[in-house]
Amino acid sequence: MLLNKGVAITLIKDMTEDQITLQIIKVLKEGKNKDFQAILEELQPYDIARIFEGLPEKHHTRFLLFLTKEQIAELIQELEKVHQLIILTKLGIEKSGQVMDLMENDDLASLLENLSPDKIEELLSGMEQEESKIVQHIMNYPPETAGRIMTNRFVWIKQHYTVRDSVDKLKIFAEFSETINYLYVINDDKKLVGVVSYRDLILSDEYEKIQDIMYSRVIAVSASADQEEVARVIERYDFLAVPVVENNHELVGIVTVDDIIDVVIKEANEDIEKLSASGKSIDFDTKAHVAAYRRLPWLILLLFIGLVSGTIISSFEETLSKVVALAFFMPMIAGMTGNTGTQSLAVVVRGLATSDTDRGAVAKLILRELIVGLIIGITCGILISIIAYIWQGNPVLGLVVGSSLIMTLIIGTLAGTIIPLILYKFNIDPAVASGPLITTLNDILSLLIYFGIATMFISKLM
Amino acid sequence: MLLNKGVAITLIKDMTEDQITLQIIKVLKEGKNKDFQAILEELQPYDIARIFEGLPEKHHTRFLLFLTKEQIAELIQELEKVHQLIILTKLGIEKSGQVMDLMENDDLASLLENLSPDKIEELLSGMEQEESKIVQHIMNYPPETAGRIMTNRFVWIKQHYTVRDSVDKLKIFAEFSETINYLYVINDDKKLVGVVSYRDLILSDEYEKIQDIMYSRVIAVSASADQEEVARVIERYDFLAVPVVENNHELVGIVTVDDIIDVVIKEANEDIEKLSASGKSIDFDTKAHVAAYRRLPWLILLLFIGLVSGTIISSFEETLSKVVALAFFMPMIAGMTGNTGTQSLAVVVRGLATSDTDRGAVAKLILRELIVGLIIGITCGILISIIAYIWQGNPVLGLVVGSSLIMTLIIGTLAGTIIPLILYKFNIDPAVASGPLITTLNDILSLLIYFGIATMFISKLM
Repeated sequence: MLLNKGVAITLIKDMTEDQITLQIIKVLKEGKNKDFQAILEELQPYDIARIFEGLPEKHHTRFLLFLTKEQIAELIQELEKVHQLIILTKLGIEKSGQVMDLMENDDLASLLENLSPDKIEELLSGMEQEESKIVQHIMNYPPETAGRIMTNRFVWIKQHYTVRDSVDKLKIFAEFSETINYLYVINDDKKLVGVVSYRDLILSDEYEKIQDIMYSRVIAVSASADQEEVARVIERYDFLAVPVVENNHELVGIVTVDDIIDVVIKEANEDIEKLSASGKSIDFDTKAHVAAYRRLPWLILLLFIGLVSGTIISSFEETLSKVVALAFFMPMIAGMTGNTGTQSLAVVVRGLATSDTDRGAVAKLILRELIVGLIIGITCGILISIIAYIWQGNPVLGLVVGSSLIMTLIIGTLAGTIIPLILYKFNIDPAVASGPLITTLNDILSLLIYFGIATMFISKLM
Repeated sequence: MLLNKGVAITLIKDMTEDQITLQIIKVLKEGKNKDFQAILEELQPYDIARIFEGLPEKHHTRFLLFLTKEQIAELIQELEKVHQLIILTKLGIEKSGQVMDLMENDDLASLLENLSPDKIEELLSGMEQEESKIVQHIMNYPPETAGRIMTNRFVWIKQHYTVRDSVDKLKIFAEFSETINYLYVINDDKKLVGVVSYRDLILSDEYEKIQDIMYSRVIAVSASADQEEVARVIERYDFLAVPVVENNHELVGIVTVDDIIDVVIKEANEDIEKLSASGKSIDFDTKAHVAAYRRLPWLILLLFIGLVSGTIISSFEETLSKVVALAFFMPMIAGMTGNTGTQSLAVVVRGLATSDTDRGAVAKLILRELIVGLIIGITCGILISIIAYIWQGNPVLGLVVGSSLIMTLIIGTLAGTIIPLILYKFNIDPAVASGPLITTLNDILSLLIYFGIATMFISKLM
């Protein structure tokens, strides 16, 4: 098993990662470049990166020395950004420039985006001018757009080419065409007019014209499209890549399915982070003080909002001091209202991420949630009335608690539905803030309703 | 724009979905099968499905009549399960069998899985025996495994084939090889020994032997592997497909990247559903009573758990009736403890879904979260001490609230970390139940700590 335990990988050529690592250390020590290359040839870039990371630091320099520029470029793309920078710095301006020329433009852009202008300038200076221009061009698009995650490593052909011409061009650009499986057809204005798959090439006669075998209703995304929209297109059409065009239909790049898998994972994680207010990008490797720093803003905000709840309770101090038993049901009412709101919110957030919405769908959804609120409100309300009556032996208290719960559950459900829809309408990501926002709002509303009703019936409660 | 608004799709051949639909209704009415086919030729299956759904019901029968069996198979795979069944029933046993022969086996298996044995039997009876056997074989694997989502629509070759032999075989199985871009090499025992990409075929000389150009350290997954593991392999290696083998390395199918995108989306949605306890699979189209029915179990459970909190408060009734102001800080303490637990939980759940874990990583994570808990506990605790003192003019109350918050935040953070890890250890999905479980547990713990400390200092509080 090459990968970590738990991953059910079967390797046909049987050697464990440890065995390979030992073998590599041996050939590195003996300086046998050829044997080294023979081992690497059988490995995937991901595996090479894992082995590189597992290698004692002292072997790193020679390991890099034995790699070709192409191999370094492949290796580097599988590493964390920090390690990418360390390696590039180690290589020196000239060689790092050559390696960067070979890297995927989008990976390079994402590596550079958080560096200082000086450092970017320094790194780019070693690259070929044409390549560095392309990277800078990609970095001009806003983050999380098609333009930012596209690559220019695709092969274009003209519509008057024959299949043979196209295969010849493909052979020349073999390095380029590694991961894609379509050739894009452009006209003399560089506008995208068709697409041909490798399979079409294999299955066609070699003298056929591209324009006769190409598929001309090409689905493309605009460079400014949000990466989530690009993901939706690839997911819907089961594409392996989608072409990216500027507003004038000029073909500027492609987005490949492997980048889209990363986008889908990232966006889902972001939704979860926002719903749970856990703060941006905390993972297993985040340092404790960084994680605490990222989580604290929400918690401090919640602290102050919690004090608002406190103020509401304090304004009902008289009611509460007369019937202390009211406090017993506070956590239940607030908790359930918060929870029903979160349930609705999760449904809406995921629905918005995966479905299309129009006015009709929104109206239907709100109506649906209203009915859901009514059903769960009445069910839970009746249940708690009976329990409260039996527990505290006070029928009025039962009615107060029960009717409060009916109202708060209906309102909580609607709040969890409508607030994210409003945020979405104003182009604010509905997941942002609405997790804690809704819980807190529902907390406050539920206390107001509960103590409001209790105060109305205070004479009968005592 | 062919797709719904909001999706930045650019179509090179300019016609809107509505225009196409009108055109199709026209040719259907006029019975022009050829024109109908000319339109369909330019459309993707996803688009054809959208148009079919948008078409008035009365045109459906003729629409289906005009489609070839291959086109119906493609269309059907883009529709909801309910509509798939309606169409198959409409086609009658014989034709539906022929269509099902052409469908992807995994899609067919997932369509059949929830039907009654009688209905399955009926549908399968129209299929070719060999095909129906394959589907039944797939259905024998547990849900959410590689075996369940694999397809047998791949092309295998033998290692002694030449490139030319392989291309010839590929041409014969053109229908099969639509979506994949690798040929899998097997030996005489049907064991997987290599892989060749279409690109390798295009770039190689036609008389070269497959065994000389194939890549022999093939990465494969076992048929019983969890679909999340398959997704991890595809995501790591940027594969377009991964071969599936039985325990003896016999090649039984492949899983393609488009299915993996669906897996990634589905698993993320499941995590969100579980974290928010919103119940299984509620989307925009779920009926109100179904949604309410799915959400109610959690809410009723929460109701009873909320009563546990109530019981705890009632056991401190004496303390509370002496210092009613204690109630003011209850929502804040419970809310923040619940929130810090949810934050930790989200980090752990997503971390477990995307990283590998060993004992060392787990120990490191728990230590990290302990430090996080200390930092946020001390920060928020000091803050609230000062605020409580100023608000209520009682320094002891400030200290009681502050020290409670420090303790509850540390314990809440740890609970949110350790509980999902324990569930994971016992092979229970850490997201299941731990959302509400942790919130509730933290609620109860925070009340016990808060009122416990308050009772200790009750004489000084009054």
